[in-house]
Amino acid sequence: MNDKGILLHVSGADAAGVEAGIRAAQNAGACLPNVRIDLVVQGPCVAFLRAGSVLEAELAALPEQAGQGRHVHVLACGNSMRSAGMEADDLCRDVSMVPAAVAHLAVRQFDGWAYVRV
Amino acid sequence: MNDKGILLHVSGADAAGVEAGIRAAQNAGACLPNVRIDLVVQGPCVAFLRAGSVLEAELAALPEQAGQGRHVHVLACGNSMRSAGMEADDLCRDVSMVPAAVAHLAVRQFDGWAYVRV
Amino acid sequence: MNDKGILLHVSGADAAGVEAGIRAAQNAGACLPNVRIDLVVQGPCVAFLRAGSVLEAELAALPEQAGQGRHVHVLACGNSMRSAGMEADDLCRDVSMVPAAVAHLAVRQFDGWAYVRV
Repeated sequence: MNDKGILLHVSGADAAGVEAGIRAAQNAGACLPNVRIDLVVQGPCVAFLRAGSVLEAELAALPEQAGQGRHVHVLACGNSMRSAGMEADDLCRDVSMVPAAVAHLAVRQFDGWAYVRV
Repeated sequence: MNDKGILLHVSGADAAGVEAGIRAAQNAGACLPNVRIDLVVQGPCVAFLRAGSVLEAELAALPEQAGQGRHVHVLACGNSMRSAGMEADDLCRDVSMVPAAVAHLAVRQFDGWAYVRV
Repeated sequence: MNDKGILLHVSGADAAGVEAGIRAAQNAGACLPNVRIDLVVQGPCVAFLRAGSVLEAELAALPEQAGQGRHVHVLACGNSMRSAGMEADDLCRDVSMVPAAVAHLAVRQFDGWAYVRV
């Protein structure tokens, strides 16, 4: 597994954005099997990371689809979750929270990660 | 103060984009207090950087809200200003102009800055 | 010619996005004449890279407008082309295909290129 990784940044209110992020993670995982992937979800669309969401099955399947090993992480922005009235316990299994999407996106890039806005 | 910084890139026509950029700068400044922040505004929404804009008070408060010291810079794209019929004198106090947003965003990244599209 | 370059990432369905990408490439080329530029087009708007597209003349003029030498490359996402029922032969002259936009955008950034989402 490479040290470097890819940040896939989803923002906005729609499920379509999160679905595009999932497809981008699948495509990236297929082409670059040894690169880590963080799918960072910000804005009102964090609601689609809630347990029981219509996207739960797709999110659960993502780490294995994306390549060998479980190297895709789905991360919800804590600021966006607070705005949406969500807590860490509300998230799908295998989805984690970061305090602020923008800070996570910056720190990873300082470590050499690539960034793609979905 | 760190050498590295964060580029927050706002584009489009709406005040909502500039407001989202201001919030992103506040969040980034809260999490990463020693990192410089450039809020780069491109497209028709540069009009909201005009002196007297509805966002003038928020823009003026930004550098101090974002952390100790005045390390947030709000930068208007000169190409976008020309399209909007604006000159440097039209900008809010503390807002500066760069000749071309895309060139500023590239040169900063060559220096190690992180990029986030708001 | 510099080793580094700028990735201009266009996504979505509209011709307006591709046109904004062309303008961004012109602006970047004018300000940074020795920097390479990849205009990476993803999503349904790859259809505007088809031979005979309303944008064909603008795309053909781009490499020379952007500065001395032909250092602007227009690249279509292969995954998006498949979704649009397009093959490599369908593209305008001087437009190339990459297998997956997201992978190209990542690999170039690992090499030090800057990224701007148009």
